This record gives sequence, C-alpha cells and structure tokens, in this order.
Amino acid sequence: MREFILRALKAFTSPNFSLNDLPGAGRMDLVCRCISSALWISNDLRRDTKIHVVLEGKPLPPKTITFYGKELKGLSPDERNIASHIRLALKKGLNLKMNEEVEVWSGIKIAKKSFESLVKEKAKEFQLIYLHPKGKDIREFEFKEKVCFVLGDHIGIPRKTEKLLDRIGAERVSLGPKVYLASHCITIVNYELDRRLG
Amino acid sequence: MREFILRALKAFTSPNFSLNDLPGAGRMDLVCRCISSALWISNDLRRDTKIHVVLEGKPLPPKTITFYGKELKGLSPDERNIASHIRLALKKGLNLKMNEEVEVWSGIKIAKKSFESLVKEKAKEFQLIYLHPKGKDIREFEFKEKVCFVLGDHIGIPRKTEKLLDRIGAERVSLGPKVYLASHCITIVNYELDRRLG
Repeated sequence: MREFILRALKAFTSPNFSLNDLPGAGRMDLVCRCISSALWISNDLRRDTKIHVVLEGKPLPPKTITFYGKELKGLSPDERNIASHIRLALKKGLNLKMNEEVEVWSGIKIAKKSFESLVKEKAKEFQLIYLHPKGKDIREFEFKEKVCFVLGDHIGIPRKTEKLLDRIGAERVSLGPKVYLASHCITIVNYELDRRLG
Repeated sequence: MREFILRALKAFTSPNFSLNDLPGAGRMDLVCRCISSALWISNDLRRDTKIHVVLEGKPLPPKTITFYGKELKGLSPDERNIASHIRLALKKGLNLKMNEEVEVWSGIKIAKKSFESLVKEKAKEFQLIYLHPKGKDIREFEFKEKVCFVLGDHIGIPRKTEKLLDRIGAERVSLGPKVYLASHCITIVNYELDRRLG
C-alpha cells in the first residue's frame, strides 16, 4: 500500500478561488498535478494508492483532503477537473471541527487535520519516507509494504517540520542528482516502486 | 541533447478553443502536461531539451509547435498557462504554408509540418526512440548523446506510423511493467537519463 502526503503551505483553504487562476490560489495547480501523478496510470487509477494534500493557506487552515485511488470515480487527470473537486471538498468542509472528517465525493474526504497530526498518525502504521536530495538513493533503499512519502511544495519543508520528521523516524530518500517538481517526484517514486514489484 | 515528439491525433489546430475546457480541445490538457514534464525541473528549465507537439485535430492539421528549454521565457508549468501559449502559436500560425515556420514567443515556434516529415528529419541526426511496452528495458538500453523520443497520446500510435518508425530505424524502449500517461512517460525518461549523467 502506497500513500503520499503533500504539504502545501500556501494553498487556499476556502472554496472561493477561481478555476481560471490555480497558481494564484496558493499554487493549487501544483497540488492538482501531484494528485494526478499519484493516482493516474494509462486507462486506470492506482487502486492501492492514496494521496493526502494538506492545505495550509488562507483563510481556514489546516484542511487535509484525501483522494483514494480505490474509490475515486468520475474524475479526469487535468488540473481544472481536480481543482473543481478540491473546491467542492473545501465547500463541504467549511464548518468542520478539529479532526472531524467528511466524505464529499466517491473517493474524496476532507478533514480539519494538521500536517503534524497526520504524519504522527501515519508513522505508527507506515514506513515514513521524506524525499530529500541528501537522502539515501531510492534505488538502494529497502521499502516495506506499507510506505508513505512526505513531500513539500514549491517552498519546501520548513526546518521545524524536518525536525519533527526526524523525531518520528522518517527516513530520507533521494531521487538522484536533480531536484524535481513535487508532481514529478511522485511520478518517479511510483515508477521506482512499480519496477520493484515487477 | 534531448528531444521529445508527441503526436496528438485529436488536439485542435485552430486557436478557437476555450482555456476552460482543455480536455474538450482534443485533449489539449495532455499536450500541456507533456510540455511541462519535458522542460520543467525545480526552479529551472531543462536548457538541453526540446519538445515538439504535433497537433493533428480539426480544423487545420498538421501543426507542429516546438518548445525550446534553452530560450523559453515567462511561462509557468500549469496547464492553462501553457495552453494559452499554444493558442497564441496557433493564432500566429494560421496562414503558414507547408513546412514554413515562425517564432511566436521566446522559445516557441510553430510550423505547418507533418509528424512524418518531422520524424524522418530527426532520424538523420538523432537516435530515435519509440516508447513501447514491448521494447527493450530502458535500464539496459544504450543511449547516444543526441536522442529523440516519440510518444503517442491517449489514443496511441497508429499501426501505419509504427511501420514508418520501424522503417526509419526507431528503436523500441520500454519503461517496465506498467503503462503510463504520456506526460508521466516523459518525466520517467528524463529521470532515467538524469541518473545516467549523474
């Protein structure tokens, strides 16, 4: 089982953003591309994969939206379509209490949950991986069956969060010499794991 | 030097499409994602890379738009921004004669050139690679310095085109057990080549 957590520090947390300006909604375009990279393959979805996007922009952070490859229906992999479902989730999640979660669409849930709570929760059950240029090479790394990858957005992961990740035992893994867009990192991780499973 | 050629069989060839419905413009969303995957890395563009997108949808096929990583300026990697530049190119390329080419933006040119002409031209100078699930494994494949990858869209490469590719010496290369979206194939190819260069 594969999971991804994207921490999007500036991504808007109210549904009042325009689908015509996703970069202006705190780089919602980046968030959408990550979801597409995590879940889509040719003519299918990755049924064994989930992605949690933690939105921390204005005005109502945090909001964690989870996309479940197993149950997702009726979405297409373009940014605008995914963004329209994020907007729907934010609308239905406006009045959530802390740690409350609701389903907003087949395969999409929203919770008022912080990044810190989410990674602590995942650390109990999953091998937690933090993608980092100075980590161990992914090709030499031993993955367990239940693995969860943590990624930052265009701003990156704050130093304080890195310390938290170290404390809860996240391991640092590198994708090689280049630094990639977050969505491309997800595509590469999926590819590396696909090849191991054969 | 790396080049990619995407054959987009249905992508619109007039500028009269809506930026609010890229999938409805013959899967222009897919075309945009491929351009983004080919050229963007974190905080930079791939200066040694080009991508040619051959649009063959209605009403004025073929149109070949080339994006040059070296000269590209002022674009962002979201689908809508890239699509707006494709629309600009199609506008400026409305009255091109066969094989005529014009620059429409720093790092973007449009030509009235067919897929067949383009691949034949590239075959003279480049190692031509056709990504195919039954090809040789990319990890065991020997690439030359000048390499050009040919990809199909969601419909795939027609049988007749496969025969042409065979005839001009294109080699088939596989990315492993899964079949990916075209844009993800490009990300993976870039990653595999990055790792070899170290």
